[in-house]
Amino acid sequence: MNYKVLHYIVGCILKFEGLFMLLPSLVGAIYGEYREALGFIAVALLCEILGFVETTIGSRKGNLYVKEGFAAVSLGWIVLSLFGCLPFVINGEIPHFTDALFETVSGFTTTGASILNNVEALSHAGLFWRSFTHWIGGMGVFVFIMAILPMMGGSTMNLMKAESTGPSVGKLLPKVRDTAKILYTIYIALTIIEAILLLISGMPFFDSITLTFGTVGTGGFGVRNSSIADYSHASQIIITVFMIISGINYSAFFLILSKHFKEALKMEEVRCYLGIVAISGILIAANIYQIYENVGDALRHAFFQVGSIISTTGYATTDFDAWPAFSKTILLLLMFTGACAGSTAGGFKISRVVILFKTIRKELSNLIHPQLVKVIKMDDHAVKDEVIRSTNVFTAAYFIILLFSLLLLSIDGYDITTNFTTAVTMLNNVGPGFNLVGPTCNYSFFSDFSKFVMIFDMLAGRLEIYPMLIFFHPACWKKY
Amino acid sequence: MNYKVLHYIVGCILKFEGLFMLLPSLVGAIYGEYREALGFIAVALLCEILGFVETTIGSRKGNLYVKEGFAAVSLGWIVLSLFGCLPFVINGEIPHFTDALFETVSGFTTTGASILNNVEALSHAGLFWRSFTHWIGGMGVFVFIMAILPMMGGSTMNLMKAESTGPSVGKLLPKVRDTAKILYTIYIALTIIEAILLLISGMPFFDSITLTFGTVGTGGFGVRNSSIADYSHASQIIITVFMIISGINYSAFFLILSKHFKEALKMEEVRCYLGIVAISGILIAANIYQIYENVGDALRHAFFQVGSIISTTGYATTDFDAWPAFSKTILLLLMFTGACAGSTAGGFKISRVVILFKTIRKELSNLIHPQLVKVIKMDDHAVKDEVIRSTNVFTAAYFIILLFSLLLLSIDGYDITTNFTTAVTMLNNVGPGFNLVGPTCNYSFFSDFSKFVMIFDMLAGRLEIYPMLIFFHPACWKKY
Repeated sequence: MNYKVLHYIVGCILKFEGLFMLLPSLVGAIYGEYREALGFIAVALLCEILGFVETTIGSRKGNLYVKEGFAAVSLGWIVLSLFGCLPFVINGEIPHFTDALFETVSGFTTTGASILNNVEALSHAGLFWRSFTHWIGGMGVFVFIMAILPMMGGSTMNLMKAESTGPSVGKLLPKVRDTAKILYTIYIALTIIEAILLLISGMPFFDSITLTFGTVGTGGFGVRNSSIADYSHASQIIITVFMIISGINYSAFFLILSKHFKEALKMEEVRCYLGIVAISGILIAANIYQIYENVGDALRHAFFQVGSIISTTGYATTDFDAWPAFSKTILLLLMFTGACAGSTAGGFKISRVVILFKTIRKELSNLIHPQLVKVIKMDDHAVKDEVIRSTNVFTAAYFIILLFSLLLLSIDGYDITTNFTTAVTMLNNVGPGFNLVGPTCNYSFFSDFSKFVMIFDMLAGRLEIYPMLIFFHPACWKKY
Repeated sequence: MNYKVLHYIVGCILKFEGLFMLLPSLVGAIYGEYREALGFIAVALLCEILGFVETTIGSRKGNLYVKEGFAAVSLGWIVLSLFGCLPFVINGEIPHFTDALFETVSGFTTTGASILNNVEALSHAGLFWRSFTHWIGGMGVFVFIMAILPMMGGSTMNLMKAESTGPSVGKLLPKVRDTAKILYTIYIALTIIEAILLLISGMPFFDSITLTFGTVGTGGFGVRNSSIADYSHASQIIITVFMIISGINYSAFFLILSKHFKEALKMEEVRCYLGIVAISGILIAANIYQIYENVGDALRHAFFQVGSIISTTGYATTDFDAWPAFSKTILLLLMFTGACAGSTAGGFKISRVVILFKTIRKELSNLIHPQLVKVIKMDDHAVKDEVIRSTNVFTAAYFIILLFSLLLLSIDGYDITTNFTTAVTMLNNVGPGFNLVGPTCNYSFFSDFSKFVMIFDMLAGRLEIYPMLIFFHPACWKKY
C-alpha cells in the first residue's frame, strides 16, 4: 500500500469538504442563524488545517493501482462522513454522534434515511447541508475533485472506477478529467433546470434548491416532515420526472448532447429502465385505484413512488406502506433493481439485471444446443468475460451482505419485514422501507450497533461493495 | 427432441408409480380401510395400463442428450405428481384437485408443506402414501429406476445429473447403475436403522415408519397435527440426529463404507455443514433460553429446529414462529443455505455457498494482487470453471425466481413476511415459514393461482432450476 498517496488524497478530501461547508454557513448567515453558521465555519477551519497537514505529509506522486484506488475512495468517503457529521453534533441539532454519522452517511450515499423525528426543527443551515451532501455524494466527491484538480499521473481511472456505478465504467472522453468535467456539467445543468421549474411551480426558494439536490442526487432528504405530500401537484410531477431522469445512464445524456440521438435511443439499459418504470407505474395505479377512486391521483401517486423507489431517491407523496401487498411488492423489487449504471442512483442496477438474464438464457441455450457458441451482447457489443464474471461475483457478494445484515439487524428484535426492508433499502441507498421503517417513520429506534451495520451497508451500496471489502481486507494494508 | 425416449421414460415412471401404490393399498387392507385401499388399487391399475401404452409407443433406443435428460426428468416428476394425487381425490380425502396436487408435489419434492387442517383425519393408507412420496422423492425416482432397470445405453448420466442435487454430480462408481445402487443401499440402511431406533424409543410402529420416511427423505409430513411435539424426548433426539445425518453428502457415507475415513472427515462441505449446525444450534439455544428456562429444553428445541430447517425437513417440536427475531432470522438463513450437495436435502446447498465465498475471495485477491493467478479449490481439487460458471448462473436464476415468486404470491394480498418466507420455503423445499405459514399453520388459505406458483417453485427447487427452465423453454421441444 502506498500510504503517502492515501494521506494526500485524504488531505484533498478534507480541504474540499471545508470549502463545501462555507455554503451552509452562508445560508445560516442569510437566515440569521449565526450560531449554526459559526459551527459550520469552525468545522470548515478544522478541515482546512487537517487537510493541509495531510497533503503535506502525503505525496501526489506514485502510481495508484486498483487496490490504492479502491482503498482511497473508501477511506475518503469515511473521512468525508466523519467530518461532515461534526456540525450537527457541535450545533446540537443531532447531539448523539452515531445518529449524526448515520444521517451524514445517509446523506452522502444518497440513501435519505433519517433518524430525525422532526425535520422541521432543524436550522436552514443544517437542512441545507443535509441536502447538499446528497448533491456531492450523488455524482461523487472524487469525480468532483478530478474535474477541478489535475491530480495524479494517469491512473486516476481507478478512483473513478471505484466511485462510479455499474458493472463497467466507460470513459465518455479519452481523458478521465474531461469525462469528470462533462459529467458534472450535465449534473449542474439538470440541477439548475429542476430548481427553476420548481420555483415556477410555486415552491418556496429554499425548498426548491434543497429538494433539487435530493432529486438529482437521488437522495431523498426532505425539508418537511410530510416529505413531498404537501407540495402542489405541479411540483410533485416535476420531481417525478426529474427522479426518473436522474436514474438514466449519463452516457445517454452525453450521446444526446453530442447529437447521437439514435445511439441514445437504442441504449438497451435505458429502454429497459423506462419500460420497467412504465409497467410498474401502470400496475400500481390499477392496484391502488380502489384507494384514491380517481385515475389522476392514482397515476400521480403510482408514478411518483415508482420513480422515487427505482431511482433510489426515497421521497414520498403518500404512505405507500398502507398500499396493497402487490403494489408494495413491486416497490420492493424496484428497490432491488435500482436504476441505470452510470447514473447517480443506487441499487443493483438494471444493466446487471440484464446481464444476469442474458447469462441465464445463454446457459439454457448451451444445455439445449451444446454445439452452439453464443456471445452475450449489450447494445450490439459483446460483453467482456471480465464484466460477466465481475457481475456474477457482485451478485453473490450483494446477496451475502444483504442476508448477513438481516441477521445482525435481527439482534434488536424487531419484525422480519422491518429488518428485511431495512437491509434492502440501506444496501440499495433507497431510504424508506416497510412496517416500522415505512415512509412516515424514521430509523431512530434502532440500537447503535444496528446503525453501524446500516452505515456499512449504505457505504458498501454506494461504492458497490468491492471498495469497502478491499478496505477491510488485511492484505490491502501490507507495506511494499 | 427425441419424443420416443420421452414416451418410454414416462411409461416407466407410470409403471413404477403403480407398483409403489400397492404399498398404501396393503396398509389400507391391514387397517381395515378397504374403500381407501381400493382407491389406491384403481389408480395403480390405471398407471400400469397407461404405463404399458407409453412404453409401447416409446422406445428405449436413441441417445439421451442433456436436454432430453433434463426434459425427461421434469416431465417424469410432473407425471408422477399428477397421478400420485389421484388417490387423494378419488378417496375424497383431499377432494379439490389443486390441493391434492399441491400436497403430492410437496410430498415428492420433500417440501412437506401441507394444505390439510387436520392431518389426523386421514386414513392410514393416505398418511402412508403421503410419507412414502417423501421417501421416493428424497433420493429420486429416476435414481431408483436406474438402480433396478438396465435402461438406456450409456447416457443415463444426464438423468442422474438432472435429479441429483448440488453443483457437480460425482459418480461414486464408474457405472451410473452401480452408483444408483449404492446410493439406494445407503438410503435403505439409514431408513431401517432409524425406524428400529424410533420403535425402541417407544414410538408406535406406524408413526416410526412414516416419520422415518419423512426424516431420511428430508420431507417433513407428520402423522399428527402437532408434528413431532408430542413424542418422547428420546424420539425427538433420534429424529434430530437423523435429520442432520440426512443432510450430509452421500459421498461421505460411501467413503466411510469403503473405509476411507480420512477423506470422509476432510470433506470441506460436510465440515462446513456440521459447523453451521453446531454454531446455529448454540446461538439459538442461548437466545431462547429465556423462554424455556432450562438448558436441556433450550438445546433440544434449538438443535431439533436447526436440524429440521437446514436439512429442509420441516418437522417442528415447538412453534418457532414465536421465537425471538434473532433465532427466527438464523432459521431463515438456514432455509436458504440448505444442506450438502449429494444429499436428499433441498436448498441452495452448502457447497454452492462455499464456492461463492471462494469466488468473492478470489475476486478481491485479484484486485489486490493483479499479477497473482489463484485457483479455486475444494477438497484439494481445483473446481472446474464450468462448475463455477454454472454455480454463478444458478445463483442468479435462484434469486430471480425467488423474487418473481414473491411478486406473484403478493397478488393474494397477504403480508410480506408470509409471502417472502413462503417463496423461500417452497423454492428450498423446507415446508414451514413464518407468520401465516408458521409451523402451526398450513397453506390451504392461498388461492389456486398461488398454489400453482408454489408447485412450480417446489419442483424447480427439487430439480435445481435448470430442468424446469429447459422444460418450459420452447427451443427444447423442436423436432429433429
